[in-house]
Amino acid sequence: MRNIKLNLQYDGTNFCGYEIQPGKRTVRSEIEKALYKLFKRKIGLVSASRTDAGVHALGQVVNFKLRNPIPLSNIPKALNSVLPEDIRAIKAEEVGKKFNARFAAKKKEYEYLICNGEGLPPQFRNLVWQVKPKLNLSRMRKAAKLLVGKHDFSSFCAAGGDDKNFIRTLFEVEIQKRDITIWDSCKLSVVSCKFKGNGFLYKMVRNMVGTLVEVGLGRFEPSDVKRILDAKDRCLAGRTAPPQGLCLVKISY
Amino acid sequence: MRNIKLNLQYDGTNFCGYEIQPGKRTVRSEIEKALYKLFKRKIGLVSASRTDAGVHALGQVVNFKLRNPIPLSNIPKALNSVLPEDIRAIKAEEVGKKFNARFAAKKKEYEYLICNGEGLPPQFRNLVWQVKPKLNLSRMRKAAKLLVGKHDFSSFCAAGGDDKNFIRTLFEVEIQKRDITIWDSCKLSVVSCKFKGNGFLYKMVRNMVGTLVEVGLGRFEPSDVKRILDAKDRCLAGRTAPPQGLCLVKISY
Repeated sequence: MRNIKLNLQYDGTNFCGYEIQPGKRTVRSEIEKALYKLFKRKIGLVSASRTDAGVHALGQVVNFKLRNPIPLSNIPKALNSVLPEDIRAIKAEEVGKKFNARFAAKKKEYEYLICNGEGLPPQFRNLVWQVKPKLNLSRMRKAAKLLVGKHDFSSFCAAGGDDKNFIRTLFEVEIQKRDITIWDSCKLSVVSCKFKGNGFLYKMVRNMVGTLVEVGLGRFEPSDVKRILDAKDRCLAGRTAPPQGLCLVKISY
Repeated sequence: MRNIKLNLQYDGTNFCGYEIQPGKRTVRSEIEKALYKLFKRKIGLVSASRTDAGVHALGQVVNFKLRNPIPLSNIPKALNSVLPEDIRAIKAEEVGKKFNARFAAKKKEYEYLICNGEGLPPQFRNLVWQVKPKLNLSRMRKAAKLLVGKHDFSSFCAAGGDDKNFIRTLFEVEIQKRDITIWDSCKLSVVSCKFKGNGFLYKMVRNMVGTLVEVGLGRFEPSDVKRILDAKDRCLAGRTAPPQGLCLVKISY
Protein backbone atom coordinates (compact mmCIF):
# COMPACT_ATOMS: atom_id res chain seq x y z
CA MET A 1 0.00 0.00 0.00
CA ARG A 2 1.33 3.37 -0.99
CA ASN A 3 0.85 6.43 1.22
CA ILE A 4 -0.19 9.30 -1.08
CA LYS A 5 0.16 12.97 -0.19
CA LEU A 6 -2.17 15.17 -2.24
CA ASN A 7 -2.27 18.98 -2.61
CA LEU A 8 -5.73 20.47 -3.04
CA GLN A 9 -7.39 23.81 -3.79
CA TYR A 10 -11.02 24.64 -3.21
CA ASP A 11 -13.52 27.45 -3.30
CA GLY A 12 -15.14 27.14 0.14
CA THR A 13 -18.31 29.08 -0.75
CA ASN A 14 -20.60 26.15 -1.42
CA PHE A 15 -19.24 23.70 1.18
CA CYS A 16 -20.36 23.14 4.77
CA GLY A 17 -16.68 23.02 5.64
CA TYR A 18 -14.03 20.35 5.20
CA GLU A 19 -15.03 17.67 7.70
CA ILE A 20 -17.73 15.06 7.00
CA GLN A 21 -21.19 15.92 8.36
CA PRO A 22 -24.20 13.71 7.73
CA GLY A 23 -26.35 14.95 4.84
CA LYS A 24 -24.10 17.97 4.16
CA ARG A 25 -21.91 18.80 1.17
CA THR A 26 -18.37 18.92 2.56
CA VAL A 27 -14.92 18.97 0.96
CA ARG A 28 -13.85 15.68 2.51
CA SER A 29 -17.01 13.82 1.52
CA GLU A 30 -16.68 15.04 -2.08
CA ILE A 31 -13.05 13.87 -2.25
CA GLU A 32 -13.86 10.50 -0.68
CA LYS A 33 -16.73 10.10 -3.18
CA ALA A 34 -14.32 10.88 -6.03
CA LEU A 35 -11.76 8.34 -4.69
CA TYR A 36 -14.52 5.74 -4.46
CA LYS A 37 -15.57 6.39 -8.06
CA LEU A 38 -12.00 5.96 -9.27
CA PHE A 39 -10.78 3.08 -7.12
CA LYS A 40 -14.02 1.26 -6.21
CA ARG A 41 -13.22 1.11 -2.52
CA LYS A 42 -13.70 3.35 0.51
CA ILE A 43 -10.52 5.34 1.12
CA GLY A 44 -10.26 7.50 4.24
CA LEU A 45 -8.48 10.86 4.23
CA VAL A 46 -6.19 12.51 6.78
CA SER A 47 -6.03 16.29 6.31
CA ALA A 48 -3.65 19.00 7.46
CA SER A 49 -6.44 21.42 8.29
CA ARG A 50 -10.18 21.06 8.74
CA THR A 51 -11.37 24.36 7.32
CA ASP A 52 -14.79 25.81 8.23
CA ALA A 53 -17.76 26.43 5.95
CA GLY A 54 -16.95 29.25 3.51
CA VAL A 55 -13.16 29.14 4.10
CA HIS A 56 -11.02 28.78 0.95
CA ALA A 57 -7.89 26.74 0.32
CA LEU A 58 -5.01 27.15 -2.11
CA GLY A 59 -2.72 24.78 -0.23
CA GLN A 60 -4.68 22.08 1.60
CA VAL A 61 -2.78 18.80 2.04
CA VAL A 62 -4.29 15.37 2.66
CA ASN A 63 -2.92 11.82 2.65
CA PHE A 64 -4.50 8.45 2.02
CA LYS A 65 -3.49 4.83 1.55
CA LEU A 66 -3.77 3.43 -1.97
CA ARG A 67 -3.52 -0.16 -3.28
CA ASN A 68 -4.21 0.77 -6.92
CA PRO A 69 -1.04 0.90 -9.11
CA ILE A 70 -2.09 4.10 -10.98
CA PRO A 71 1.03 6.23 -11.78
CA LEU A 72 1.37 9.15 -9.34
CA SER A 73 1.33 11.79 -12.05
CA ASN A 74 -2.07 10.55 -13.27
CA ILE A 75 -3.79 10.89 -9.90
CA PRO A 76 -4.63 14.64 -10.03
CA LYS A 77 -6.02 14.41 -13.57
CA ALA A 78 -8.06 11.29 -12.77
CA LEU A 79 -9.44 12.87 -9.59
CA ASN A 80 -10.28 16.15 -11.33
CA SER A 81 -12.32 14.24 -13.90
CA VAL A 82 -14.68 13.10 -11.12
CA LEU A 83 -14.39 15.92 -8.56
CA PRO A 84 -16.86 18.84 -8.60
CA GLU A 85 -15.36 21.93 -10.22
CA ASP A 86 -14.98 23.81 -6.92
CA ILE A 87 -12.28 21.35 -5.73
CA ARG A 88 -9.09 20.74 -7.72
CA ALA A 89 -6.36 18.18 -7.06
CA ILE A 90 -3.01 19.82 -7.80
CA LYS A 91 -0.22 17.35 -7.11
CA ALA A 92 0.27 13.82 -5.77
CA GLU A 93 3.46 12.42 -4.20
CA GLU A 94 4.32 9.12 -2.55
CA VAL A 95 5.45 9.63 1.04
CA GLY A 96 6.76 7.37 3.83
CA LYS A 97 4.33 4.93 5.48
CA LYS A 98 4.21 6.96 8.69
CA PHE A 99 3.54 10.36 7.08
CA ASN A 100 0.39 11.94 8.49
CA ALA A 101 -0.74 15.19 6.84
CA ARG A 102 -2.13 16.50 10.13
CA PHE A 103 0.59 15.64 12.61
CA ALA A 104 3.63 16.05 10.33
CA ALA A 105 2.81 19.69 9.45
CA LYS A 106 5.63 22.04 10.53
CA LYS A 107 4.22 25.38 9.37
CA LYS A 108 0.80 26.59 8.26
CA GLU A 109 0.07 29.85 6.46
CA TYR A 110 -3.28 31.61 6.23
CA GLU A 111 -4.27 34.90 4.60
CA TYR A 112 -7.36 36.86 5.65
CA LEU A 113 -8.72 39.66 3.41
CA ILE A 114 -10.69 42.65 4.68
CA CYS A 115 -12.35 45.24 2.43
CA ASN A 116 -12.18 48.36 4.57
CA GLY A 117 -14.82 50.78 3.33
CA GLU A 118 -17.96 51.12 1.26
CA GLY A 119 -18.54 49.94 -2.28
CA LEU A 120 -17.71 46.24 -2.33
CA PRO A 121 -18.48 44.91 -5.84
CA PRO A 122 -20.71 41.85 -5.38
CA GLN A 123 -18.23 39.63 -7.25
CA PHE A 124 -15.88 39.90 -4.24
CA ARG A 125 -18.46 39.18 -1.53
CA ASN A 126 -17.38 35.56 -0.99
CA LEU A 127 -13.67 36.43 -0.80
CA VAL A 128 -13.40 39.26 1.75
CA TRP A 129 -14.90 40.56 4.97
CA GLN A 130 -16.32 44.07 4.52
CA VAL A 131 -15.58 46.32 7.51
CA LYS A 132 -16.97 49.77 6.71
CA PRO A 133 -15.49 52.09 9.44
CA LYS A 134 -11.84 53.03 8.92
CA LEU A 135 -9.28 50.65 10.47
CA ASN A 136 -6.10 51.99 12.04
CA LEU A 137 -3.47 49.58 10.71
CA SER A 138 -0.64 50.80 12.90
CA ARG A 139 -2.68 49.94 16.01
CA MET A 140 -3.49 46.55 14.47
CA ARG A 141 0.21 45.89 13.81
CA LYS A 142 1.12 46.75 17.41
CA ALA A 143 -1.51 44.32 18.66
CA ALA A 144 -0.41 41.62 16.20
CA LYS A 145 3.17 41.79 17.54
CA LEU A 146 1.85 40.74 20.96
CA LEU A 147 0.31 37.61 19.43
CA VAL A 148 3.58 36.46 17.86
CA GLY A 149 5.50 33.84 19.84
CA LYS A 150 4.75 30.70 21.84
CA HIS A 151 1.57 31.17 23.88
CA ASP A 152 -1.42 29.40 25.33
CA PHE A 153 -4.04 30.56 22.79
CA SER A 154 -7.12 29.34 24.75
CA SER A 155 -8.63 32.82 24.55
CA PHE A 156 -8.66 32.55 20.76
CA CYS A 157 -10.02 28.99 20.56
CA ALA A 158 -13.72 28.53 19.87
CA ALA A 159 -15.76 25.89 21.67
CA GLY A 160 -16.48 22.80 19.60
CA GLY A 161 -12.94 21.87 18.58
CA ASP A 162 -11.12 18.76 19.78
CA ASP A 163 -7.92 20.49 20.84
CA LYS A 164 -6.48 19.50 24.23
CA ASN A 165 -3.17 21.32 24.09
CA PHE A 166 -3.68 25.05 23.60
CA ILE A 167 -0.03 26.00 23.21
CA ARG A 168 0.89 27.13 19.71
CA THR A 169 3.72 29.16 18.23
CA LEU A 170 2.80 32.00 15.94
CA PHE A 171 5.89 32.78 13.83
CA GLU A 172 4.68 35.91 12.10
CA VAL A 173 1.67 38.16 11.52
CA GLU A 174 1.89 40.57 8.58
CA ILE A 175 -0.73 43.27 8.02
CA GLN A 176 -0.56 45.26 4.81
CA LYS A 177 -2.68 47.22 2.36
CA ARG A 178 -2.87 45.75 -1.09
CA ASP A 179 -5.04 45.96 -4.20
CA ILE A 180 -6.89 42.96 -5.48
CA THR A 181 -7.78 43.10 -9.14
CA ILE A 182 -9.96 41.03 -11.37
CA TRP A 183 -11.21 43.37 -14.11
CA ASP A 184 -8.89 46.16 -15.18
CA SER A 185 -11.32 48.94 -14.29
CA CYS A 186 -11.92 47.68 -10.78
CA LYS A 187 -9.18 47.61 -8.18
CA LEU A 188 -10.31 46.75 -4.68
CA SER A 189 -8.10 47.96 -1.85
CA VAL A 190 -7.92 45.35 0.90
CA VAL A 191 -6.21 44.89 4.24
CA SER A 192 -4.39 41.56 4.07
CA CYS A 193 -3.57 39.78 7.35
CA LYS A 194 -1.12 36.89 6.96
CA PHE A 195 -0.51 34.40 9.75
CA LYS A 196 2.29 31.83 9.89
CA GLY A 197 2.44 29.37 12.76
CA ASN A 198 3.20 25.79 13.75
CA GLY A 199 -0.51 25.13 14.10
CA PHE A 200 -3.82 26.85 14.80
CA LEU A 201 -6.66 26.01 17.19
CA TYR A 202 -10.33 25.79 16.17
CA LYS A 203 -11.30 29.18 14.60
CA MET A 204 -8.09 30.69 16.02
CA VAL A 205 -7.24 32.73 12.90
CA ARG A 206 -10.76 34.14 12.65
CA ASN A 207 -10.77 34.99 16.36
CA MET A 208 -7.41 36.75 16.07
CA VAL A 209 -8.66 38.72 13.03
CA GLY A 210 -11.86 39.67 14.87
CA THR A 211 -9.80 40.91 17.81
CA LEU A 212 -7.31 42.82 15.63
CA VAL A 213 -10.27 44.52 13.90
CA GLU A 214 -11.62 45.64 17.30
CA VAL A 215 -8.18 47.16 17.95
CA GLY A 216 -8.20 48.79 14.50
CA LEU A 217 -11.63 50.30 15.25
CA GLY A 218 -10.43 51.69 18.60
CA ARG A 219 -12.69 49.45 20.72
CA PHE A 220 -9.70 47.58 22.19
CA GLU A 221 -6.24 48.93 22.94
CA PRO A 222 -3.30 47.11 21.32
CA SER A 223 -2.09 46.15 24.80
CA ASP A 224 -5.45 44.46 25.53
CA VAL A 225 -4.23 41.58 23.39
CA LYS A 226 -1.69 40.63 26.06
CA ARG A 227 -4.38 40.78 28.75
CA ILE A 228 -6.68 38.58 26.61
CA LEU A 229 -3.93 36.01 25.97
CA ASP A 230 -3.03 35.88 29.67
CA ALA A 231 -6.65 35.40 30.78
CA LYS A 232 -7.08 32.18 28.74
CA ASP A 233 -10.76 33.02 28.44
CA ARG A 234 -12.54 33.05 25.07
CA CYS A 235 -15.13 35.54 26.35
CA LEU A 236 -12.56 38.35 26.35
CA ALA A 237 -11.45 38.23 22.72
CA GLY A 238 -13.26 40.01 19.88
CA ARG A 239 -15.95 38.51 17.68
CA THR A 240 -15.08 35.74 15.23
CA ALA A 241 -14.35 37.20 11.79
CA PRO A 242 -16.62 35.68 9.11
CA PRO A 243 -15.25 32.70 7.16
CA GLN A 244 -15.24 33.96 3.57
CA GLY A 245 -12.23 36.26 4.14
CA LEU A 246 -10.01 33.34 5.12
CA CYS A 247 -7.79 31.23 2.89
CA LEU A 248 -5.48 28.36 3.83
CA VAL A 249 -2.50 29.28 1.72
CA LYS A 250 0.25 26.74 2.44
CA ILE A 251 1.29 23.84 4.66
CA SER A 252 4.99 23.05 5.03
CA TYR A 253 6.43 19.70 6.16
CA MET B 1 -43.08 61.21 -12.24
CA ARG B 2 -39.30 61.27 -12.04
CA ASN B 3 -37.17 59.31 -14.51
CA ILE B 4 -34.43 57.58 -12.48
CA LYS B 5 -31.15 56.34 -13.93
CA LEU B 6 -29.55 53.66 -11.78
CA ASN B 7 -26.04 52.15 -11.94
CA LEU B 8 -25.81 48.48 -10.98
CA GLN B 9 -23.21 45.78 -10.39
CA TYR B 10 -23.86 42.07 -10.29
CA ASP B 11 -22.17 38.71 -10.06
CA GLY B 12 -23.75 36.86 -12.99
CA THR B 13 -22.93 33.35 -11.72
CA ASN B 14 -26.26 32.50 -10.16
CA PHE B 15 -28.56 34.31 -12.61
CA CYS B 16 -30.26 32.97 -15.75
CA GLY B 17 -29.24 36.25 -17.39
CA TYR B 18 -30.62 39.77 -17.15
CA GLU B 19 -33.96 39.54 -18.96
CA ILE B 20 -37.14 38.21 -17.32
CA GLN B 21 -37.89 34.52 -18.02
CA PRO B 22 -40.85 32.74 -16.44
CA GLY B 23 -39.86 30.72 -13.38
CA LYS B 24 -36.18 31.70 -13.63
CA ARG B 25 -33.99 33.79 -11.32
CA THR B 26 -32.92 36.76 -13.44
CA VAL B 27 -31.30 40.12 -12.66
CA ARG B 28 -34.25 42.14 -13.93
CA SER B 29 -36.85 40.15 -12.02
CA GLU B 30 -34.86 40.49 -8.78
CA ILE B 31 -34.58 44.27 -9.22
CA GLU B 32 -38.28 44.62 -10.09
CA LYS B 33 -39.13 42.52 -7.00
CA ALA B 34 -36.97 44.83 -4.89
CA LEU B 35 -38.64 47.95 -6.35
CA TYR B 36 -42.03 46.42 -5.61
CA LYS B 37 -41.05 45.74 -2.00
CA LEU B 38 -39.91 49.33 -1.54
CA PHE B 39 -42.56 51.25 -3.45
CA LYS B 40 -45.58 48.88 -3.38
CA ARG B 41 -46.21 49.13 -7.10
CA LYS B 42 -44.99 47.38 -10.25
CA ILE B 43 -42.17 49.40 -11.80
CA GLY B 44 -40.79 48.34 -15.20
CA LEU B 45 -37.08 48.66 -16.05
CA VAL B 46 -35.32 49.71 -19.23
CA SER B 47 -31.73 48.47 -19.35
CA ALA B 48 -28.66 49.40 -21.37
CA SER B 49 -27.63 45.80 -21.91
CA ARG B 50 -29.39 42.48 -21.49
CA THR B 51 -26.49 40.32 -20.32
CA ASP B 52 -26.59 36.51 -20.67
CA ALA B 53 -26.58 33.91 -17.92
CA GLY B 54 -23.20 33.90 -16.16
CA VAL B 55 -22.09 37.30 -17.51
CA HIS B 56 -20.98 39.85 -14.89
CA ALA B 57 -21.59 43.59 -14.66
CA LEU B 58 -19.68 46.40 -13.00
CA GLY B 59 -21.43 49.14 -14.97
CA GLN B 60 -24.98 48.13 -15.93
CA VAL B 61 -27.37 51.07 -16.29
CA VAL B 62 -31.17 50.94 -16.08
CA ASN B 63 -33.90 53.57 -15.86
CA PHE B 64 -37.41 53.55 -14.44
CA LYS B 65 -40.27 55.94 -13.66
CA LEU B 66 -40.87 56.75 -9.99
CA ARG B 67 -43.75 58.55 -8.27
CA ASN B 68 -42.38 58.10 -4.75
CA PRO B 69 -40.68 61.24 -3.32
CA ILE B 70 -37.74 59.34 -1.75
CA PRO B 71 -34.52 61.45 -1.97
CA LEU B 72 -32.26 60.27 -4.81
CA SER B 73 -29.30 59.60 -2.57
CA ASN B 74 -31.37 57.17 -0.47
CA ILE B 75 -32.38 54.98 -3.41
CA PRO B 76 -29.24 52.77 -3.63
CA LYS B 77 -29.19 52.11 0.11
CA ALA B 78 -32.92 51.35 0.23
CA LEU B 79 -32.65 49.02 -2.76
CA ASN B 80 -29.59 47.23 -1.36
CA SER B 81 -31.51 46.49 1.83
CA VAL B 82 -33.97 44.38 -0.19
CA LEU B 83 -31.85 43.17 -3.14
CA PRO B 84 -30.06 39.80 -2.98
CA GLU B 85 -26.36 40.18 -2.18
CA ASP B 86 -25.22 39.32 -5.72
CA ILE B 87 -26.77 42.57 -7.10
CA ARG B 88 -25.76 46.01 -5.78
CA ALA B 89 -27.26 49.39 -6.63
CA ILE B 90 -24.42 51.91 -6.87
CA LYS B 91 -25.83 55.31 -7.80
CA ALA B 92 -29.16 56.92 -8.69
CA GLU B 93 -29.64 60.15 -10.70
CA GLU B 94 -32.68 61.96 -12.00
CA VAL B 95 -32.61 62.27 -15.79
CA GLY B 96 -34.79 63.93 -18.44
CA LYS B 97 -38.21 62.44 -19.15
CA LYS B 98 -37.09 61.06 -22.52
CA PHE B 99 -33.91 59.38 -21.30
CA ASN B 100 -33.88 55.67 -22.22
CA ALA B 101 -30.95 53.63 -20.84
CA ARG B 102 -30.95 51.38 -23.91
CA PHE B 103 -31.31 53.83 -26.78
CA ALA B 104 -29.37 56.75 -25.29
CA ALA B 105 -26.16 54.73 -24.78
CA LYS B 106 -23.27 56.22 -26.79
CA LYS B 107 -20.48 53.81 -25.84
CA LYS B 108 -20.35 50.39 -24.20
CA GLU B 109 -17.26 48.73 -22.77
CA TYR B 110 -16.79 45.02 -22.07
CA GLU B 111 -13.80 43.07 -20.76
CA TYR B 112 -13.32 39.35 -21.39
CA LEU B 113 -10.78 37.36 -19.33
CA ILE B 114 -9.02 34.21 -20.56
CA CYS B 115 -6.78 32.02 -18.40
CA ASN B 116 -4.32 30.65 -20.95
CA GLY B 117 -2.80 27.48 -19.54
CA GLU B 118 -3.15 24.79 -16.91
CA GLY B 119 -3.68 25.25 -13.20
CA LEU B 120 -6.74 27.44 -12.79
CA PRO B 121 -7.48 27.79 -9.04
CA PRO B 122 -11.16 26.87 -8.57
CA GLN B 123 -11.89 30.25 -6.98
CA PHE B 124 -11.46 31.86 -10.43
CA ARG B 125 -13.61 29.40 -12.39
CA ASN B 126 -16.65 31.71 -12.62
CA LEU B 127 -14.57 34.71 -13.72
CA VAL B 128 -12.45 33.49 -16.64
CA TRP B 129 -12.48 31.14 -19.64
CA GLN B 130 -9.70 28.57 -19.38
CA VAL B 131 -8.02 27.92 -22.76
CA LYS B 132 -5.21 25.43 -22.19
CA PRO B 133 -3.16 25.48 -25.46
CA LYS B 134 -0.91 28.51 -25.89
CA LEU B 135 -2.49 31.54 -27.59
CA ASN B 136 -0.48 33.69 -29.99
CA LEU B 137 -1.46 37.20 -28.94
CA SER B 138 0.19 38.99 -31.82
CA ARG B 139 -1.98 37.00 -34.27
CA MET B 140 -5.03 37.81 -32.12
CA ARG B 141 -4.18 41.54 -32.18
CA LYS B 142 -3.84 41.52 -35.99
CA ALA B 143 -7.26 39.87 -36.28
CA ALA B 144 -8.79 42.27 -33.76
CA LYS B 145 -7.67 45.28 -35.84
CA LEU B 146 -9.81 43.99 -38.71
CA LEU B 147 -12.89 44.02 -36.46
CA VAL B 148 -12.44 47.68 -35.49
CA GLY B 149 -14.56 50.16 -37.43
CA LYS B 150 -18.12 50.41 -38.75
CA HIS B 151 -19.24 47.04 -40.11
CA ASP B 152 -22.23 44.78 -40.60
CA PHE B 153 -21.55 42.32 -37.75
CA SER B 154 -24.18 39.71 -38.82
CA SER B 155 -21.50 37.00 -38.79
CA PHE B 156 -20.96 37.65 -35.08
CA CYS B 157 -24.62 37.82 -34.08
CA ALA B 158 -26.22 34.73 -32.54
CA ALA B 159 -29.73 33.62 -33.47
CA GLY B 160 -32.37 34.49 -30.87
CA GLY B 161 -31.71 38.23 -30.53
CA ASP B 162 -34.17 40.92 -31.61
CA ASP B 163 -31.68 43.01 -33.60
CA LYS B 164 -32.80 44.20 -37.03
CA ASN B 165 -29.95 46.52 -37.89
CA PHE B 166 -26.61 44.68 -37.82
CA ILE B 167 -24.37 47.69 -38.38
CA ARG B 168 -22.27 48.59 -35.37
CA THR B 169 -19.11 50.60 -34.81
CA LEU B 170 -16.35 48.99 -32.82
CA PHE B 171 -14.10 51.80 -31.57
CA GLU B 172 -11.30 49.73 -30.07
CA VAL B 173 -10.19 46.20 -29.17
CA GLU B 174 -7.30 45.90 -26.74
CA ILE B 175 -5.66 42.54 -26.02
CA GLN B 176 -3.10 42.39 -23.25
CA LYS B 177 -1.54 40.07 -20.71
CA ARG B 178 -2.17 40.98 -17.11
CA ASP B 179 -2.10 39.37 -13.67
CA ILE B 180 -5.21 39.05 -11.61
CA THR B 181 -4.62 38.70 -7.90
CA ILE B 182 -6.80 37.84 -4.98
CA TRP B 183 -4.51 36.18 -2.42
CA ASP B 184 -0.93 37.36 -2.26
CA SER B 185 0.56 33.94 -3.00
CA CYS B 186 -1.56 33.39 -6.08
CA LYS B 187 -1.21 35.54 -9.17
CA LEU B 188 -3.16 34.34 -12.18
CA SER B 189 -1.87 35.47 -15.57
CA VAL B 190 -4.77 36.23 -17.89
CA VAL B 191 -5.31 37.48 -21.41
CA SER B 192 -7.66 40.46 -21.17
CA CYS B 193 -9.69 41.42 -24.27
CA LYS B 194 -11.36 44.83 -24.01
CA PHE B 195 -14.02 45.94 -26.47
CA LYS B 196 -15.40 49.47 -26.85
CA GLY B 197 -18.19 50.15 -29.30
CA ASN B 198 -21.39 52.09 -29.90
CA GLY B 199 -23.39 48.91 -29.34
CA PHE B 200 -23.13 45.14 -29.56
CA LEU B 201 -25.44 42.53 -31.13
CA TYR B 202 -26.73 39.43 -29.31
CA LYS B 203 -23.65 37.44 -28.10
CA MET B 204 -21.42 39.57 -30.35
CA VAL B 205 -18.60 40.01 -27.82
CA ARG B 206 -18.51 36.30 -27.01
CA ASN B 207 -18.55 35.41 -30.72
CA MET B 208 -15.68 37.82 -31.42
CA VAL B 209 -13.68 36.37 -28.49
CA GLY B 210 -14.35 32.80 -29.72
CA THR B 211 -13.11 33.77 -33.19
CA LEU B 212 -10.03 35.61 -31.88
CA VAL B 213 -9.17 32.52 -29.81
CA GLU B 214 -9.34 30.35 -32.97
CA VAL B 215 -6.88 32.80 -34.56
CA GLY B 216 -4.67 32.65 -31.46
CA LEU B 217 -4.65 28.84 -31.66
CA GLY B 218 -3.70 28.90 -35.35
CA ARG B 219 -6.97 27.41 -36.59
CA PHE B 220 -7.94 30.63 -38.39
CA GLU B 221 -5.65 33.16 -40.05
CA PRO B 222 -5.92 36.78 -38.83
CA SER B 223 -7.11 37.74 -42.34
CA ASP B 224 -10.00 35.23 -42.08
CA VAL B 225 -11.74 37.77 -39.86
CA LYS B 226 -12.27 40.05 -42.85
CA ARG B 227 -13.67 37.16 -44.91
CA ILE B 228 -16.02 36.24 -42.02
CA LEU B 229 -17.26 39.84 -41.63
CA ASP B 230 -17.84 40.16 -45.38
CA ALA B 231 -19.80 36.89 -45.60
CA LYS B 232 -22.44 38.06 -43.08
CA ASP B 233 -22.93 34.42 -42.10
CA ARG B 234 -22.81 33.29 -38.47
CA CYS B 235 -21.73 29.78 -39.50
CA LEU B 236 -18.27 31.02 -40.47
CA ALA B 237 -17.19 32.61 -37.19
CA GLY B 238 -15.62 30.68 -34.33
CA ARG B 239 -17.46 29.15 -31.38
CA THR B 240 -19.15 31.36 -28.81
CA ALA B 241 -16.82 31.95 -25.86
CA PRO B 242 -18.43 30.88 -22.54
CA PRO B 243 -20.25 33.57 -20.54
CA GLN B 244 -18.31 33.61 -17.26
CA GLY B 245 -15.27 35.37 -18.80
CA LEU B 246 -17.37 38.38 -19.80
CA CYS B 247 -18.01 41.55 -17.82
CA LEU B 248 -20.03 44.63 -18.81
CA VAL B 249 -17.67 47.31 -17.55
CA LYS B 250 -19.16 50.68 -18.49
CA ILE B 251 -21.90 52.43 -20.43
CA SER B 252 -21.39 56.05 -21.48
CA TYR B 253 -24.17 58.49 -22.40
